[in-house]
Amino acid sequence: MKPDVLLPQPYLLFLGDTTEPGYAKTAFGLRDWAGERCVGEYACGATVSTGLPFMTPAEARAAGANALVIGVANSGGFIPPSWLAALVEAMEAGLDIISGMHARLRDFDVLRETADRLGRRLIDVRQPPVGIPVASGRPRQGKRLLTLGTDCALGKKYTALALTRAFTARGKDATFRATGQTGILIAGGGIPMDAVVADFAAGAAEMLTPDADAEHWDVIEGQGSLFHPAYAGVSLALLHGSQPDVIVVCHEPGRERVLGHPGYAVPGIGETIELALRLGSRTRPNIRCAGVSLNTAKLDGAAAHRLIVAESERLGLPVADPMRGGAAFDRLVDACLA
Amino acid sequence: MKPDVLLPQPYLLFLGDTTEPGYAKTAFGLRDWAGERCVGEYACGATVSTGLPFMTPAEARAAGANALVIGVANSGGFIPPSWLAALVEAMEAGLDIISGMHARLRDFDVLRETADRLGRRLIDVRQPPVGIPVASGRPRQGKRLLTLGTDCALGKKYTALALTRAFTARGKDATFRATGQTGILIAGGGIPMDAVVADFAAGAAEMLTPDADAEHWDVIEGQGSLFHPAYAGVSLALLHGSQPDVIVVCHEPGRERVLGHPGYAVPGIGETIELALRLGSRTRPNIRCAGVSLNTAKLDGAAAHRLIVAESERLGLPVADPMRGGAAFDRLVDACLA
Repeated sequence: MKPDVLLPQPYLLFLGDTTEPGYAKTAFGLRDWAGERCVGEYACGATVSTGLPFMTPAEARAAGANALVIGVANSGGFIPPSWLAALVEAMEAGLDIISGMHARLRDFDVLRETADRLGRRLIDVRQPPVGIPVASGRPRQGKRLLTLGTDCALGKKYTALALTRAFTARGKDATFRATGQTGILIAGGGIPMDAVVADFAAGAAEMLTPDADAEHWDVIEGQGSLFHPAYAGVSLALLHGSQPDVIVVCHEPGRERVLGHPGYAVPGIGETIELALRLGSRTRPNIRCAGVSLNTAKLDGAAAHRLIVAESERLGLPVADPMRGGAAFDRLVDACLA
Repeated sequence: MKPDVLLPQPYLLFLGDTTEPGYAKTAFGLRDWAGERCVGEYACGATVSTGLPFMTPAEARAAGANALVIGVANSGGFIPPSWLAALVEAMEAGLDIISGMHARLRDFDVLRETADRLGRRLIDVRQPPVGIPVASGRPRQGKRLLTLGTDCALGKKYTALALTRAFTARGKDATFRATGQTGILIAGGGIPMDAVVADFAAGAAEMLTPDADAEHWDVIEGQGSLFHPAYAGVSLALLHGSQPDVIVVCHEPGRERVLGHPGYAVPGIGETIELALRLGSRTRPNIRCAGVSLNTAKLDGAAAHRLIVAESERLGLPVADPMRGGAAFDRLVDACLA
């Protein structure tokens, strides 16, 4: 599960020309979960910000940075031509480049030539390991939890990270299992599930969460949504291969349309739980839903509290926002470990 | 959709050391749907046979063959070392090699060196086209039919081929859309769905079945099963991306366990229809099931007829074995076109 290279650190986070906060989740994730390894942010027209100090690559290098990380995860994982000058500038200032995009850094002539000329490294973390098997479907030992979403980019990774921290705080042996580029940058290992060839996607989930001690928890970062018109197949492969004992469904209140697919409504929480349990029971017959994680970042504290209470009553399940913690989150953790 | 190369023909079909008929479906498919381009079969220990004359590569070359086709589709798509001597022998006899496996022919030193030395071609048809987009989920014009299975390797491709023939015979404009290696060898084009990176699998299905005349039918070869512990994600991506107006569910009576996964029961036909319609309605709200295709190859004619009648009554839908044709198949075609 360990990457082939040790990633050069600390990071300068690059936001490109991103105007949609949902697409900057890589930068936000690194700020929130690996903040001690981020010196600042840089951009070429972005309107979103992590709140970290804006630095040119030269300033970041002077502040100790060793790499620029592309902090954007747009739909399709492409690198637009408008970013190339900034990436060249970073290499000229002394930084390596780390990318989690589908596009490969070395496929851009100007990046490859600059890196080769200056001796910089171009590191793509969205490369799956070799030798992924077809899923066997066989039961295995150890406990596993998978986060699932009603859409992309609404809290599946944060929920898994927060649950891993909470499990560990309670003395449990728990490992966060990263399935996307940001999670891999945070964890230092994992499998980029969406870059695996489709026939092997469930096998990759099995490889990521192998047999373990009976009391060990793998807490697996979910991907996409079972209702997503482009990515549902990835979500189903991850559900089948993970064989989770427990799922936690993640939702952003107020999001009505699928991100990037405005023709599609976001499904309801209850509908998502029901479908996930039905499909997941194929490989893990005793699968159960421990509760719901709400991303209430757009609400004030009182409104978030009211909504969490109301949703918990409506669904008959523990509901919490892991970023707000508190008694509601404790109850969600209780239910996961029950 | 056209392959980059014109495939060298006619073929010698290679069965390797296969003892499981379900894994020899590539050879059987070529015999049944491209028989005029197959001169014989060759093997190195196989107990299955296509019924075509057994020929050494030299005999096949003398009979006009220009290529040996690997006629096996094992789980994982690998090329075992036990086949290499036969493949080298074929090249020495003057044949090119065509493969639909995941493994790449040129990755084997002995094959690459022999091909380069003798001027033979190594052709992998399981290479998806470049530039596959993320699925848009947008509605598009034209009619589409998708075959779905209760398991792998039980008649989805044959059903799609037979329906395409029947539609054409009734004067409809219809195109068979291949999604696997055998279908691509038969059709001369298509996309090997299981070799596409997972994030783009639904997009590949959209690319394979683009906007068309309102009365044109794309008849799409299904893959895997929505209940398969390893491949369900591929099946769901194909269902979402195809946006079929009509589905036909394919089943083999008497198959009780998933091929290669004996820990898993084959789901029921009714259960498969219900789940496929539920999941498919996400991208094609007016999806409907026209009927069921039964693979009754292991039954005699009278038993097959009785079963088809009984299943049609039980399910309240047209049921037929396309390989047997007859009035039952006519009714299934009627229901598809209704």
